[in-house]
Amino acid sequence: MINLIETNLLKTLEIYPESTVKDSMTYSLMSGGKRIRPRLLLSLLNDLGGDMNQGLYPGCALEMIHTYSLVHDDLPAMDDDDMRRHKPTNHNVFGEAMAILGGDGLLTAAFTTLAQSDLNSNIKASCMEILARNAGSLGMILGQEYDIKNEIHNLDALIACYELKTGCLFASALEMATVIAGQPEKQTDAHDLGFKLGVCFQFQDDLLEVTKTSEEIGKSVQSDADREKVTIVSLLGLEAAQELTQSYFNDIESLLLKLELKDSYLKDLIEEMMIRNL
Amino acid sequence: MINLIETNLLKTLEIYPESTVKDSMTYSLMSGGKRIRPRLLLSLLNDLGGDMNQGLYPGCALEMIHTYSLVHDDLPAMDDDDMRRHKPTNHNVFGEAMAILGGDGLLTAAFTTLAQSDLNSNIKASCMEILARNAGSLGMILGQEYDIKNEIHNLDALIACYELKTGCLFASALEMATVIAGQPEKQTDAHDLGFKLGVCFQFQDDLLEVTKTSEEIGKSVQSDADREKVTIVSLLGLEAAQELTQSYFNDIESLLLKLELKDSYLKDLIEEMMIRNL
Repeated sequence: MINLIETNLLKTLEIYPESTVKDSMTYSLMSGGKRIRPRLLLSLLNDLGGDMNQGLYPGCALEMIHTYSLVHDDLPAMDDDDMRRHKPTNHNVFGEAMAILGGDGLLTAAFTTLAQSDLNSNIKASCMEILARNAGSLGMILGQEYDIKNEIHNLDALIACYELKTGCLFASALEMATVIAGQPEKQTDAHDLGFKLGVCFQFQDDLLEVTKTSEEIGKSVQSDADREKVTIVSLLGLEAAQELTQSYFNDIESLLLKLELKDSYLKDLIEEMMIRNL
Repeated sequence: MINLIETNLLKTLEIYPESTVKDSMTYSLMSGGKRIRPRLLLSLLNDLGGDMNQGLYPGCALEMIHTYSLVHDDLPAMDDDDMRRHKPTNHNVFGEAMAILGGDGLLTAAFTTLAQSDLNSNIKASCMEILARNAGSLGMILGQEYDIKNEIHNLDALIACYELKTGCLFASALEMATVIAGQPEKQTDAHDLGFKLGVCFQFQDDLLEVTKTSEEIGKSVQSDADREKVTIVSLLGLEAAQELTQSYFNDIESLLLKLELKDSYLKDLIEEMMIRNL
């Protein structure tokens, strides 16, 4: 499945003329990564009995949104990170101006990619709504603000931040899958699953920050602690944090049952995601 | 028409929860401006016999794209401008991080706004294609790269830059109008008119930079000259630049005739735009 995603990501970039902004977009989009968001979409689409080919371009669109958010988030004015996925961050290679433009280019390209997909217009319009709502200032971007402001002092606020920052794009993947599969009645459950999964995934990132080395995760470790960011570990301690993560995982399993899936791609993917550190 | 646009711009922002990123978006989106892009869309839509109400949200989407491009373009890593529309630039009010996020928020909100419009799905999907193609790395963003790189040394390169930087969004306005009016067979002519108009408008900006004062145009004058940017005036001298601008205006009038319009809103608007300095 990852190979198919990589091939289609490259294909979606073919329409752009040679330019530095294309190089900047390509550098970050094709730098590996786990491709979790398109895989969530394709897996649920398969498990609902849909045609995975129909989810490839919407999945690429999601990965573009995710990638642009990393490029902008790494900028000196934001998190000021030097390494991402074992490579220098975009602005360290192309300069800040081209990192800003490359990010803008990826964000816009997500919608060009949706437009280019061979979905019918009703589904295209629904996917545009789902993607823009979850990615924008009602969703992921608002989560980035919470993150930057560093005003999170309790568990509820941390969970709200993680729901927005990560849950929204996961929800977007799963919501789009229900719509593409022609089962929009499952969109709300898919959204809830995405939120739970996003929070759980961020909890794990927090746990990894204190249990793994820089080499293993491909970016500077302890950077949260250096910036005195609140994490699930700083709020609850390591053991209670691991327990809460496990309880989220249990909720996720219940939500999976509720979706009445025909196959287990999504379940397998989620277990793979959770095995990272539990 | 401008009041209707202002009212609808505010309305499209109502869905966002109170936050700094919303304040950043609102500050730049509601800071006046000539609203030329939505007015182009609404005017052509009217002149093609369409219902202007149907163009309001697509017009707001265009204005959001235009505004985000200004917010990001003003950043220290880009043009590093302090004033815009007689007010401090976004990053001078909200800081760089919130200006980046506010710009991202406006870019994403453009597609949420399209999704929220009451157009049918076919037209929505077409508008998404038109907007993303013209705004992205095939269009406006590529124009920004040309602009930043400062490698323009002749008239052809300058015109190509202006077509991308400004022509693409003008084209987007006029293309969307033909699709919303149910006359997609006029889309190519509308696109060509948008390109000519964009170049002509940028020529005028260049002319204004050397003929007007800072107070009159609301941003620092001579900033092009300070940065040793090539302009139509630096390439051709003032008189020849004015002549070329006039010849573009003549081409625009021919293209207007070709569109066989039922009313003169677009013609009047273009004349108002051209009267700025001719």
